[in-house]
Amino acid sequence: MTKRIDFQTDPSRYRHWRVDYDGAIANLYMDVDENGGLFDGYQLKLNSYDLGVDIELADVVQRMRFEHPEVKVVVMRSGKDKVFCAGANIRMLGGATHAHKVNFCKFTNETRNTFEAAERDSGQKYIAAVKGACAGGGYELALACNHIMLTDDSSTTVALPEVPLLAVLPGTGGLTRVTDKRKVRRDLADVFCSLEEGVKGKRAKDWRLVDEVIANSKFDATVAERAQEFAAASDKPAGTGIALTPLQKTIGEDGSIQYSLVEVAVDRAARKVTVTLNGPDQPVPASLDALHGQGDQGWMLRLAREFDDAILELRLNEMDLGLMVFRTQGDPAAVLAHEAFLLDNSGDWLAREILQYWKRVLKRVDVTSRSLVALVESGSCYAGFLAELLWASDRSYMMDGEFEGDNRPVATVTLSAGNFGPFPMGNDLTRLQTRFLAEPEAVEVLKGRIGTPMQADEAMEAGLVTYAYDDIDWDDEIRIFMEERASFSPDAMTGMEANLRFAGPETMETRIFGRLTAWQNWIFNRPNATGKDGALQRYGTGVRGDYNMQRV
Amino acid sequence: MTKRIDFQTDPSRYRHWRVDYDGAIANLYMDVDENGGLFDGYQLKLNSYDLGVDIELADVVQRMRFEHPEVKVVVMRSGKDKVFCAGANIRMLGGATHAHKVNFCKFTNETRNTFEAAERDSGQKYIAAVKGACAGGGYELALACNHIMLTDDSSTTVALPEVPLLAVLPGTGGLTRVTDKRKVRRDLADVFCSLEEGVKGKRAKDWRLVDEVIANSKFDATVAERAQEFAAASDKPAGTGIALTPLQKTIGEDGSIQYSLVEVAVDRAARKVTVTLNGPDQPVPASLDALHGQGDQGWMLRLAREFDDAILELRLNEMDLGLMVFRTQGDPAAVLAHEAFLLDNSGDWLAREILQYWKRVLKRVDVTSRSLVALVESGSCYAGFLAELLWASDRSYMMDGEFEGDNRPVATVTLSAGNFGPFPMGNDLTRLQTRFLAEPEAVEVLKGRIGTPMQADEAMEAGLVTYAYDDIDWDDEIRIFMEERASFSPDAMTGMEANLRFAGPETMETRIFGRLTAWQNWIFNRPNATGKDGALQRYGTGVRGDYNMQRV
Repeated sequence: MTKRIDFQTDPSRYRHWRVDYDGAIANLYMDVDENGGLFDGYQLKLNSYDLGVDIELADVVQRMRFEHPEVKVVVMRSGKDKVFCAGANIRMLGGATHAHKVNFCKFTNETRNTFEAAERDSGQKYIAAVKGACAGGGYELALACNHIMLTDDSSTTVALPEVPLLAVLPGTGGLTRVTDKRKVRRDLADVFCSLEEGVKGKRAKDWRLVDEVIANSKFDATVAERAQEFAAASDKPAGTGIALTPLQKTIGEDGSIQYSLVEVAVDRAARKVTVTLNGPDQPVPASLDALHGQGDQGWMLRLAREFDDAILELRLNEMDLGLMVFRTQGDPAAVLAHEAFLLDNSGDWLAREILQYWKRVLKRVDVTSRSLVALVESGSCYAGFLAELLWASDRSYMMDGEFEGDNRPVATVTLSAGNFGPFPMGNDLTRLQTRFLAEPEAVEVLKGRIGTPMQADEAMEAGLVTYAYDDIDWDDEIRIFMEERASFSPDAMTGMEANLRFAGPETMETRIFGRLTAWQNWIFNRPNATGKDGALQRYGTGVRGDYNMQRV
Repeated sequence: MTKRIDFQTDPSRYRHWRVDYDGAIANLYMDVDENGGLFDGYQLKLNSYDLGVDIELADVVQRMRFEHPEVKVVVMRSGKDKVFCAGANIRMLGGATHAHKVNFCKFTNETRNTFEAAERDSGQKYIAAVKGACAGGGYELALACNHIMLTDDSSTTVALPEVPLLAVLPGTGGLTRVTDKRKVRRDLADVFCSLEEGVKGKRAKDWRLVDEVIANSKFDATVAERAQEFAAASDKPAGTGIALTPLQKTIGEDGSIQYSLVEVAVDRAARKVTVTLNGPDQPVPASLDALHGQGDQGWMLRLAREFDDAILELRLNEMDLGLMVFRTQGDPAAVLAHEAFLLDNSGDWLAREILQYWKRVLKRVDVTSRSLVALVESGSCYAGFLAELLWASDRSYMMDGEFEGDNRPVATVTLSAGNFGPFPMGNDLTRLQTRFLAEPEAVEVLKGRIGTPMQADEAMEAGLVTYAYDDIDWDDEIRIFMEERASFSPDAMTGMEANLRFAGPETMETRIFGRLTAWQNWIFNRPNATGKDGALQRYGTGVRGDYNMQRV
């Protein structure tokens, strides 16, 4: 599994999903092409999925937001008889590297979080209309929907059979959503997660595993009725969508990537990648009409799409580049003006969707398992939402004052209203609130600095950057840091960063990425699951995994 | 590392710690005997520790509560020059099995949580008086104290060098306490955890790593002054301690253990152990004087000590017994009467300490990595605090009605005031609140059932047990469950249980056992740390670990 993975797709290329749009209601069918696996060596039987299936789903969810703002309810269904979804493909998992498994789970988690949050963020509610077996990752798809409807027939069940069958966890949010979203009683959850055959009918409702159980004969009608009901109850403003066109993107021979606004420069010897985000290349839209007229070519949306794609490219295709360096270049005032236009117009569906998308992109950065460092250089534009990168990073370095021979403007950091609310982390705090957990009053004081560019001494004093160095020390300090960081064990850094990045309150989201993922990663490393006689390898042979029975 | 580990010790046997009692102040010296390691193959240099050192510390902390209730402030110091504590012994970690490392970390975490909570629970405040290098687990010891004082000299530093030096995490609460207790700014935490040499002096205070930095010449005087000050500010009631005498305990050839009130029956073929807790063998104390007169022989304290020891014995010495079955036998009314006596007298220091100890023992059950099942049989006494075992277990089975040839009283469950507050879980909710997270009103309704024994149908209807079976089905159902459970992969069950047991809010404690531990376990399984060329194996050779640089 070493081929380069492309996260860009569009409906004309889908092999596994189809959508019928019907006004405020979208009917989404999962109908996996069993010969359409991303890699060789397995067939995607019984609506099982691999990363390729999920890349299409992420694309569906994203287009639903931007291309179909008229949609208020999405009904997720199976396009196959007798099976809703059998979960992640076991042969794919059995053959995948540890790194691929972990990254696969992270991406699928992000997609599920995205459609789960669509109700709150964008007024798009997802219904899982479950007919047929709904197992493992299949039930996790349903769990991430806002409402689960189950048909009451002999073959329709929900199940999380991972533990008894595969010796791994339902690791795509399943265990967390069972306890914290569905609030299933803990002993019943224990029973449920131990039952290969799952639970059906009334019991599934009684145990809180689904919201409704409906006689098979009335199922389709009730689903349609419920969708209409939810749509009628939504006050989501309608609008005409914009098209998400293919990204402008050139991949160089060394793996560097050039987008219209984002540059990804690979330095393989130093095991680092530098991601440069460029400031506005166009004026602020003159009006909301102008914003809509720009479609996906407006600066903030284009930058979000390119940056999002760059992060995904690096995560899955460049695992040896452990250090991710963020740079920005551009006019901070122009960044603030673009952001302010959207914030001032957040009643407009498109303005709001662009801001929401930036929230998601920044969250994707937060959970990216690389050492993240932001460089605040001359000519940079860490202002408003772009300044969030300073606090999404593990640390930041700022140029202090003029640098010889550098005639770009002196480095500054500028806060905006965007730093105090619209882009929360997974813990539901802003990055500034998380950063100043010990001194909440510091966040209040910073509100007084909105709009004022701060040079290095002020930014340091305000606690916004980690280090500031002048012309004499800059190059050496940066070099020493990068060399040192590149020498540490990647695993230890992943664990350290996962713990240090999310101080403060926990949410279902932080628990999924923090706790559940960590346990799943551990189990993925254990011979009982992934050894040659482990359950994943032996699945389908009729022989159970050969377990070391020691409890750890 | 296969020898049987004994968790019982007493001051006459200490090799690593000594305590000077001085009225309200206890001076605790860590002075590790480098030849006193629990296993062969390493020396405990520079006040480094292994499980044996921690068993003594746990004993100190426990005796401080029961034998020295007059103590209001404990000052933790090093008995050695130039070093406070170098942390967990690396050679010990390098030579230990994965299971030993994980269990070692769990026990040390529990001990740290216990002395950290002593201030809130018992009015005993721990001061870390740090002189000399304080690194890794050494700094984690200090972090768990309620106040950290650092001398300001050239050799005294605090450090968490695990990531750069050893490719593992500061996994005994270090990362969590840095972010969530000390609330260190996240980028400074990143710098701190990457610095082998640590941080000293004013910077340590500025970064919130310590509470005070004091000139070396004034250090001892200031520590003494601070201890007096804290002692004077405490309103902890004084009292005369009771002696904790050696447990009555016989270990059979098959590993079964007989205490005075607790029976541990090993069934190695079925990979299960049955732990029976017996009800009161003595009347309720007639008065507080009588309670104090009983010392450690009173029923509730004796049961707590024996049960606590049994859990530790099983965790460390019987790792192949994956299924832990809880039974109780005795008079439920007598259980309630004993508990009520303590609850009614919780203003008395001893009564309160016994209740607090039960809180800790039940928390130890909560984080025990075994499948836990409670059997509610005829003659059982699941009443009040003992009923907590039903909800600490992963599931429970109850006998329904009379059983042929069984003339013990019919099985019942009885709630008490003890189930609604005094024994919270690590998430700070009661077990009933956690169980009924979806229906908080159900907990209120249950308060109306206090004191009324509920038979199986009522207990089922109230949601207090998982299953109830009558005479006809009981044996088969229990057998089938146990066989099935014993066949699952232990790792998957550990991960599943760690996720299902702690629904609801998170605390520092749940984060330490849930998130931090899981990441540490993962890293302990990675070749970069524990492989033959990993950092733990190569430590001290002058050659760095040979890392696979792929980021996962």
